[in-house]
Amino acid sequence: MNIGLDMMGGDFAPLEAARGIRLYLGEHSKTTTLVLFGDEALLTPLLAQENITGDIQIVHAAQVIGMHEHPTRALKEKQQSSIAVGFHYLATGKIDAFISAGNTGAMLVGAMFSIKVIEGVLRPTISTVIPKENGKTGLLLDVGLNADCKPENLNQFALLGSLYARYILGIGHPRVSLLNVGEEEGKGNILAQAAYPLLKANSQINFIGNTEGRDVFLDKADVTVCEGFTGNVVLKMAESVYDITHAKQIEHEFLDRFNFEYYGGTPVLGVSKPVIIGHGISKSNAFKNMIAVAAKMIETDLMSKMKASFTGTANA
Amino acid sequence: MNIGLDMMGGDFAPLEAARGIRLYLGEHSKTTTLVLFGDEALLTPLLAQENITGDIQIVHAAQVIGMHEHPTRALKEKQQSSIAVGFHYLATGKIDAFISAGNTGAMLVGAMFSIKVIEGVLRPTISTVIPKENGKTGLLLDVGLNADCKPENLNQFALLGSLYARYILGIGHPRVSLLNVGEEEGKGNILAQAAYPLLKANSQINFIGNTEGRDVFLDKADVTVCEGFTGNVVLKMAESVYDITHAKQIEHEFLDRFNFEYYGGTPVLGVSKPVIIGHGISKSNAFKNMIAVAAKMIETDLMSKMKASFTGTANA
Repeated sequence: MNIGLDMMGGDFAPLEAARGIRLYLGEHSKTTTLVLFGDEALLTPLLAQENITGDIQIVHAAQVIGMHEHPTRALKEKQQSSIAVGFHYLATGKIDAFISAGNTGAMLVGAMFSIKVIEGVLRPTISTVIPKENGKTGLLLDVGLNADCKPENLNQFALLGSLYARYILGIGHPRVSLLNVGEEEGKGNILAQAAYPLLKANSQINFIGNTEGRDVFLDKADVTVCEGFTGNVVLKMAESVYDITHAKQIEHEFLDRFNFEYYGGTPVLGVSKPVIIGHGISKSNAFKNMIAVAAKMIETDLMSKMKASFTGTANA
Repeated sequence: MNIGLDMMGGDFAPLEAARGIRLYLGEHSKTTTLVLFGDEALLTPLLAQENITGDIQIVHAAQVIGMHEHPTRALKEKQQSSIAVGFHYLATGKIDAFISAGNTGAMLVGAMFSIKVIEGVLRPTISTVIPKENGKTGLLLDVGLNADCKPENLNQFALLGSLYARYILGIGHPRVSLLNVGEEEGKGNILAQAAYPLLKANSQINFIGNTEGRDVFLDKADVTVCEGFTGNVVLKMAESVYDITHAKQIEHEFLDRFNFEYYGGTPVLGVSKPVIIGHGISKSNAFKNMIAVAAKMIETDLMSKMKASFTGTANA
């Protein structure tokens, strides 16, 4: 398999991306070809300097999309950027997955327009892995791609999240919950009240009902769905718990698990090929983990599973 | 002044309520008459047992509204309950504030229908105090009373919260932010996008723009507004940080400040008289703090300030 990696994306690119590759190659068997997008004159000596050898291909990309550029405009105007070239490779099948810690908006626009949305999926979504207090992990989605949602969007996020939890996180028969302000059916805002019966009637998921803010870090559900406004606030609050406790030197294994480097980036779910977006402040461990997740998405053929599930819905 | 306290509300009533009274009386000068609603045959020996003396009046209430009773029905059917009698006293001016750690829904229904909403206020709101990592505190609202909001609701919450922050939390010229998914104007869901210009144009508040989930525990804003769905999730997540770290014996002054007993209950803002709702698991410290907040709301004449601000808006 061929995994594409934008070497120019993120605050510490390309050095930390290179170190992430070295970590990945040190831990995994060499069945993967890594295709690196970026400035060849910069990358060739960097790989040598970091002693990185293996099945690696550099694809020269003369431009870089900055972290604060307007996504659509930047993708259009910088067709030689590492993100644009990467998506071209993904769309044409020269790579099987694409990873970047660069401009999030450009990655989302690229994911939605360079490659296709899975047939039947109304809106792709982004998720985050959430640490649970008992050592397990869960998935929360949407975490910001869809600030306003319709009930059916949440229902689809539940299915996409369940498949990701099953095949990538290794959770059999994942429990799905609706993030809400109370436990009982009928609670919530208009969206949550309307989403509940859809989730309850969805035979493709294992819906267990509502969970609340107090349950986010408890092992009550494996997959929790919400619109992207609340999900984004929850994600950034969870990240800040790590930042604040780390700065205050409050040490505990549970708090360490809030470090996003544990998990790597967030996959864009609902598009037809694996795309993973990293945090701007990704360091080597995050890059390593993103490559590992991309490899797992390819190995498990997650995309075919998602396509089959949505075809099933369409036929039902 | 006369402060009314429901002695029968909360998981540890009436014992912890009584102990809270003792704590309050030990710390404050005796200018307050405490009016206690509950079963006289239970309360009289309890006060003696706990050595509570002072300016205290017991008002017999033969019934109790349970924590899980339907609010409207319970208030209607149990007119001799401590909550119903308390609101009757508040509505007729026999007490100046009413506190209960009992059935939250019944307290909200009582607050909105027994006493009036301040003229000009579209929807009352409930708030929570949020600990900031630098030792300060901020206010977040709405935290669950209004799961669906219109932009003008958020604008009014900003004014109500600003007045509470100024007079009760002692924060001069409180900075107001809109909880959002990004810093820039124009970010957010439809509600946040529409609320931003209203907040920006509101000359009665000190609007500083958007804050994000990562800023909730940082000292960026003194008052943060959002609809009650997201606010409720944030509140319950914050509470769970304390619960989880406490259970794991992760000790730190910052984490201790997530203990809601620090702050007491949540006032219902936008109604014409002080009403404070305590957590069901309130213990003595929480009751003490709720009495202190009620006293401060009366002493500072916060209600008149709120009425004047909304009259000002109406006349403007």
